[in-house]
Amino acid sequence: MRLLPPWLRDYQRAWLAGDFSAGLIAALLLIPQSLAYAMLAGMPAQTGLYASILPALAYALFGSSMSTAVGPVALTSLMTLSALQPLADVGSTHYQGLALLLALMSGLMLLLMGLLRLGFLAYFLSQPVVSGFISGSAVLIAVSQLQHLLGVQASGSNVFASLAALAQALPQAQPVALALGGSSLLLLWLARRTLGAGLARLGLSPALADLGARLAPLLLVVLAAAVAAQWQLAQRAGLAVVGVVPQGLPQLQLQALTLEGVQALLLPALLISLVGFVGSVSVAQAFALRRQQRVLPDRELLGLGAANLASAASGAFPVAGGFSRTVVNFAAGAQSPLAGVFSALWIGVVIFALTGWFEHVPLPVLAATIIVAVASLVDVQALRDAWRYDRADALALLATAGGVLALGVEAGIAIGVSLSLAVLVWRSSRPHMAVLGRVPGTEHYRSVERHQVETVPGLLAVRVDESLFFANATVFEDRLQALLAQDPGVKRVLLVCSAVNQIDATALSMLTQLDGHLAGRGIELQMAEVKGALMDRLQRTPLGTALQRRVFLSAHEAFEAARDAAK
Amino acid sequence: MRLLPPWLRDYQRAWLAGDFSAGLIAALLLIPQSLAYAMLAGMPAQTGLYASILPALAYALFGSSMSTAVGPVALTSLMTLSALQPLADVGSTHYQGLALLLALMSGLMLLLMGLLRLGFLAYFLSQPVVSGFISGSAVLIAVSQLQHLLGVQASGSNVFASLAALAQALPQAQPVALALGGSSLLLLWLARRTLGAGLARLGLSPALADLGARLAPLLLVVLAAAVAAQWQLAQRAGLAVVGVVPQGLPQLQLQALTLEGVQALLLPALLISLVGFVGSVSVAQAFALRRQQRVLPDRELLGLGAANLASAASGAFPVAGGFSRTVVNFAAGAQSPLAGVFSALWIGVVIFALTGWFEHVPLPVLAATIIVAVASLVDVQALRDAWRYDRADALALLATAGGVLALGVEAGIAIGVSLSLAVLVWRSSRPHMAVLGRVPGTEHYRSVERHQVETVPGLLAVRVDESLFFANATVFEDRLQALLAQDPGVKRVLLVCSAVNQIDATALSMLTQLDGHLAGRGIELQMAEVKGALMDRLQRTPLGTALQRRVFLSAHEAFEAARDAAK
Repeated sequence: MRLLPPWLRDYQRAWLAGDFSAGLIAALLLIPQSLAYAMLAGMPAQTGLYASILPALAYALFGSSMSTAVGPVALTSLMTLSALQPLADVGSTHYQGLALLLALMSGLMLLLMGLLRLGFLAYFLSQPVVSGFISGSAVLIAVSQLQHLLGVQASGSNVFASLAALAQALPQAQPVALALGGSSLLLLWLARRTLGAGLARLGLSPALADLGARLAPLLLVVLAAAVAAQWQLAQRAGLAVVGVVPQGLPQLQLQALTLEGVQALLLPALLISLVGFVGSVSVAQAFALRRQQRVLPDRELLGLGAANLASAASGAFPVAGGFSRTVVNFAAGAQSPLAGVFSALWIGVVIFALTGWFEHVPLPVLAATIIVAVASLVDVQALRDAWRYDRADALALLATAGGVLALGVEAGIAIGVSLSLAVLVWRSSRPHMAVLGRVPGTEHYRSVERHQVETVPGLLAVRVDESLFFANATVFEDRLQALLAQDPGVKRVLLVCSAVNQIDATALSMLTQLDGHLAGRGIELQMAEVKGALMDRLQRTPLGTALQRRVFLSAHEAFEAARDAAK
Repeated sequence: MRLLPPWLRDYQRAWLAGDFSAGLIAALLLIPQSLAYAMLAGMPAQTGLYASILPALAYALFGSSMSTAVGPVALTSLMTLSALQPLADVGSTHYQGLALLLALMSGLMLLLMGLLRLGFLAYFLSQPVVSGFISGSAVLIAVSQLQHLLGVQASGSNVFASLAALAQALPQAQPVALALGGSSLLLLWLARRTLGAGLARLGLSPALADLGARLAPLLLVVLAAAVAAQWQLAQRAGLAVVGVVPQGLPQLQLQALTLEGVQALLLPALLISLVGFVGSVSVAQAFALRRQQRVLPDRELLGLGAANLASAASGAFPVAGGFSRTVVNFAAGAQSPLAGVFSALWIGVVIFALTGWFEHVPLPVLAATIIVAVASLVDVQALRDAWRYDRADALALLATAGGVLALGVEAGIAIGVSLSLAVLVWRSSRPHMAVLGRVPGTEHYRSVERHQVETVPGLLAVRVDESLFFANATVFEDRLQALLAQDPGVKRVLLVCSAVNQIDATALSMLTQLDGHLAGRGIELQMAEVKGALMDRLQRTPLGTALQRRVFLSAHEAFEAARDAAK
């Protein structure tokens, strides 16, 4: 029993109906998406289906989220393409071998991170950076699909180069591809905008209407495949289609497992792991909150690691927990990961039963489903919110998105993380400081600039609203010296530490020196409201020993003492 | 008058005597050091003297510190050598041209940084990192000089390789070099250990005794040069000496000013600028504090920039404000930068008068003065202090020192800065949180774990001792959910924000979602003691608007309200 996942041990029979029907619906909805993301990753379309079976089962066994659906995801598919394109020709056996190796390495890295309990790493990406990253990548993905809509080959090393190549290739555009792709785009956009509301007006419940609208891509893909097969558009008009699909599951191919291959893929595998993990955790957390469940990041790492190993074993490419997959699953009424197991089984049935039919699916239609899917990921509202609340965060968002567009996915992440850290240090490096006085008749002490307060002659009471550390120690000292220069009569400097959560070694050394210099000028340094944990550490230092009798529990006690001394 | 530096406008006649005599003494003491650091930089010995004249005058005009002495410094000399060695042969004209170019570029960068007011950058290096960097570099420098003591050529790409090369070259050691170098080392070490105390026992004042002890290197160099000249040790025993020095000041050589040269030196010039600047500011600050003066980092940038341009114009190499130079200057009684002007003039006199004499100075003796000078920079106490106060800081110190030793100066800095930032984020990512209750009979609220306090049923009051931001938002939420899970009867969650200095966009979004989810479970989210500046920003957000009536001025008011509601 210990080996069973917790959700299976606690499985309630009432969940079964929901899980079963959700599994079937999700399988239908996920088929076009899986085919399309395989194409985005530069892989044969059917590998997108393989990547939706065993990985989903592996995640159900080892993951921690009750709702997350695992499979091919737009972002990691794009990253797979950009990692492998320089190493092998898209479509070659070598390319597929490298994709498998990438999934294998990514799986091993995720498992290792899980065993080392590195789940907390997910929190080191700030939301503006993640938002900028997703929006930038969505534009990158949409642009990369335009060539399929036009029926031409045109891509560049960044978005602007791709757009230039597209503009140049425009005269060679295929009428059939353009017609099929353009009308698909229009239909999908209309379905997304109006179909749900229309179905609801016809009397369907909102949840059912939403599901109905989500069936549009599947219907479109089936219809387009039928049209293409009927009129033999591939042979007669040169329409690009998925093409011949080998029946059944593939053999494990490991011919790419060479030392050079492993070295070349180390960094891409790490980035794909991190991006996949961060995305999966955000999705899992969003849905766990709705049901008051908890997500364990270290367990998520194990689940995603197992899923990627399973994807490698299926001859597919890296997978992750996907937002739109999970929405579908949740909306279809999934109660537990068993829904994922059912939909994996259904997709398996589809592969065996309908292989002959897939080959007719036109690529322009798949490209249209990708474009419509990622268009909703561009989050302009997040930029607007960030801009209103915090310019620095908004700039970090824009720089990350710009970095993804101009320099690629990896550079975008690097820029984003660096900026998050820089913004953090920059903000803390200019702490807010307030000179305090007593609110008359109370034990409350507030800023002399914001309130009518009483001060004691000879006492300079300063509250610093930041932990003291290397980036602000000197600024703090400079400001304190400036305050002292304004009032030559000061005999006591009281540091109110209610907002000082940490004092690092640099700030400690600054305070120690400051204490010496102030003493030399006949001024006593005092502290008040030092937090317990911080005081424990200070007491192990020479400064702590020297200050011992000059640390007051509250600002009030220090003011009383100064008042007594002034009498 | 506007164009004169502030210290000259306010110059007091009483300072003149101190400045004049300090200038003479400092000039005598700086001569061996300047020769030795030129050798360390791979430059002809006399360029060390050139680098002590015009740069010192330029700094006196533009710098902000009253005490700092500018000239060749061990760290930047070492960095000059390691930057230029891969590009040109030490001793060649091309090498000297590149050194000049390096000083020129470094000067321009420092001026630019000064004009852009980037002086605050100096604060982004934590003290443990700077300390580890200096200690590591000191060992690196000392090891690099051992080959001169042995009279052999043996250096490697890192400290361990250098030591291995030295061990291999040991059988070829020159007896004369070893004898001269070894005895110099012993004498200098004895002088440093005992001469000051001995002179003080003879009745000299402590300051004079200290100065007397500092004259030891000069006496030793003069004596060794006389011995070498007398017995013609260079010709007869192959002793390495400074060699023929062209008389007078050099011509400006700019043949190295090519695009390739500039590109190759961009990064080294930037690093030398930053290291020189950080070192100079630390020195300036230490001495400014003793005299209750202030250092303006942006002015320091301008002063150092001008000094490096002047060094380039003198045909020398990068300079900075040096710790031992400044100590000498201060101890000799310098009152203002005029002392630096005087000592520059004296060194100029020495160059013109004594050029013929320099050529006999033996390199092993200069190497011994370098080793003894940098030995005092190895700061084991800093490591011990950091270890006792904060393991993370101690590890950052060790990693930086190890990085310098194993990978070089540049890699050491990069490792140190990354670690400082990582430690900062890591610490803030696990905030201390306390559940609060009322200290009976007071308006004080303290942790239920540390104090005997009263709580109100249905009210969960939590104080979080950290700004809320991307790296801890999820951890905070997880812990809050865990607290809520322990007590199903909670109806109000009160967030006491006395130590929350900032809430970034990520944490804001977390709080907004949290508020929604809690409301869905019938729990009200409240806040208390929100800082004024933070409240101003929150009020511009949907969360701020929603919370409006649920923000209390103090924890006490929130507890009173909860108590009233519970009645």
